[in-house]
Amino acid sequence: MTKSNVVKAFGYAARDTSGTLSPFTFSRRATGENDVQFKVMYCGVCHSDLHMLKNEWGVSKYPIVPGHEIVGVVTEVGSNVQKFKVGDRVGVGCLVGSCRKCDECATDLENYCPKQILTYSATDFDGTITYGGYSDIMVANEHFVVRWPENLPMEAAPLLCAGITTYSPLKHFELDKPGKHVGVVGLGGLGHMAVKFAKAFGAKVTVISTTISKKQEAIELLGADEFLISKDPDQMQAAAGTMDGIIDTVSAAHPLVPLLMLLKTNGKIIMVGAPEKPLELPVFPLLLGRKAIVGSAIGGLKETQEMVDFAAKNNIMPDIEVVPVNYINTAMDRLLKSDVKYRFVLDIANTMKAE
Amino acid sequence: MTKSNVVKAFGYAARDTSGTLSPFTFSRRATGENDVQFKVMYCGVCHSDLHMLKNEWGVSKYPIVPGHEIVGVVTEVGSNVQKFKVGDRVGVGCLVGSCRKCDECATDLENYCPKQILTYSATDFDGTITYGGYSDIMVANEHFVVRWPENLPMEAAPLLCAGITTYSPLKHFELDKPGKHVGVVGLGGLGHMAVKFAKAFGAKVTVISTTISKKQEAIELLGADEFLISKDPDQMQAAAGTMDGIIDTVSAAHPLVPLLMLLKTNGKIIMVGAPEKPLELPVFPLLLGRKAIVGSAIGGLKETQEMVDFAAKNNIMPDIEVVPVNYINTAMDRLLKSDVKYRFVLDIANTMKAE
Repeated sequence: MTKSNVVKAFGYAARDTSGTLSPFTFSRRATGENDVQFKVMYCGVCHSDLHMLKNEWGVSKYPIVPGHEIVGVVTEVGSNVQKFKVGDRVGVGCLVGSCRKCDECATDLENYCPKQILTYSATDFDGTITYGGYSDIMVANEHFVVRWPENLPMEAAPLLCAGITTYSPLKHFELDKPGKHVGVVGLGGLGHMAVKFAKAFGAKVTVISTTISKKQEAIELLGADEFLISKDPDQMQAAAGTMDGIIDTVSAAHPLVPLLMLLKTNGKIIMVGAPEKPLELPVFPLLLGRKAIVGSAIGGLKETQEMVDFAAKNNIMPDIEVVPVNYINTAMDRLLKSDVKYRFVLDIANTMKAE
Repeated sequence: MTKSNVVKAFGYAARDTSGTLSPFTFSRRATGENDVQFKVMYCGVCHSDLHMLKNEWGVSKYPIVPGHEIVGVVTEVGSNVQKFKVGDRVGVGCLVGSCRKCDECATDLENYCPKQILTYSATDFDGTITYGGYSDIMVANEHFVVRWPENLPMEAAPLLCAGITTYSPLKHFELDKPGKHVGVVGLGGLGHMAVKFAKAFGAKVTVISTTISKKQEAIELLGADEFLISKDPDQMQAAAGTMDGIIDTVSAAHPLVPLLMLLKTNGKIIMVGAPEKPLELPVFPLLLGRKAIVGSAIGGLKETQEMVDFAAKNNIMPDIEVVPVNYINTAMDRLLKSDVKYRFVLDIANTMKAE
């Protein structure tokens, strides 16, 4: 590789399963003819970054530069690029590549393409390992870059994972209408966005939690209509058979039966978290009401663009805590304890300094 | 209750959890104004009869007269009955009542009405226990009676449970079209009907089995296109990502992951059997392709009528072994060993004799 084919980059990386992040100098490919290069302004800290840093899913490739909620300003475009020009505000989410040929890609579901390239710690088509947004610059094929609306603050970067992951199933499973009743389990990065989008769609939203401690924030801060304590049999019984769908964001093992009982006929539990161990699935409660357990993973690029445009139009922002890059290891410790409302966002442009 | 309000009936009942069936004299209600009374000609023997006889689901009320695949000839109709007259051929399936007021009933989904009355061993609206089709006569509200097509042999009674249970999800989940690829797991009463209906709809059908022993019957007898041995990793890998839906009829515990891998994006495993113990549900394979595990239970009355009409028109018959009523305990023993292809049907009219 000649010097002209690479661009120097700087970021934070984990070198091993300790997951500790430290300064890291690396290179990115030079801007190809279909590529967009951009200066990273903000990058969200997703809970999956934590799993990947520690190789908890067994697929990590070290060193890892995490980050897949990336917003920045275009610095260079390739000769074939049509959608973007220097100075445009752009975002990159969880994907930087897909085959562009399969049925999924042909129907704007790059997120389900079997050959998709994840934004970090994945092997790209050229054989290199992808590096994410905890870094000063980013290069990506324009197809995987979204236009960031002018009136949407760049700090709202978590829309690119937490946002689309909840927006997409609400749309696909037709929970995006007034008259629908949506349950949300787990009030973290994903859950709080699920509440906001479902409310923006006009649905009735009930947050389901193990403890009453989150009631006030669910209702007052996030705008949920109701709050259910899953361990209170009377409350759960009173709500039985009332929900069209439940967005389940919980990654820890948890019982499905109490949630299934909340569903109407044809209701669905939509799993967007990824528990490491299998859940217990009783079949009878599925039969009695044609109920479903479905999975949903992020969204396609067309839908991601639609989602950020919808967020901008409807003034939907993730609730975030902006932190400097050198705070990242502390942020990870706090994230592990769910001590954040609801997403850390790294202030890359102001605090990332090559050392 | 005065004598005029009851009709003497004779059948076979189990008195306790031994499940042994023996002659039983009982009474049914006199034909009400919305009721149809009919002479039972044939009654299918469903695997759920076996579970109920032994109280394996914990809901049995003894004595139990089983049978919910009932075909006969009308002997009397109530004054308000519009759809039927004496001499008509009719059928009754798994349901003899529902609330007729809820959202489910209003949308022809009586099978998901929370107040549905099962055809036997359930408490009817008048407080009596319902008795099924292992008996000489039957009385039911006309709404829960289907018209039996003239050219459909009355021995095809298993359509009323095994038939509708597989027909309904194939239709609802849009697997009823040429170009769709349907998997069928388990070749019993339900599974063999799933193959026949899916083929009649024009779908490609692959039977998935643990052993090669069923290959010949699956392909030659039932008309399946392909046969997959689930324990052969090479075969399973070659079929990965090719199926739109899988009808899973297996009641025993079995792994879901190999089946999930067979599905395309948006594919569904449709559970129509009812394993007593929870299955293991890994969530990752659901996420990677927006896949679903759904349940489906029988079908509504409108759809049941549509199904028997479709079966008559397309010459779809269950494969049955017609046996005399006094063979029933032997039939149950053989059913327990899956020693029947694929459904026993009791020849009620010719062999049921009051003793």
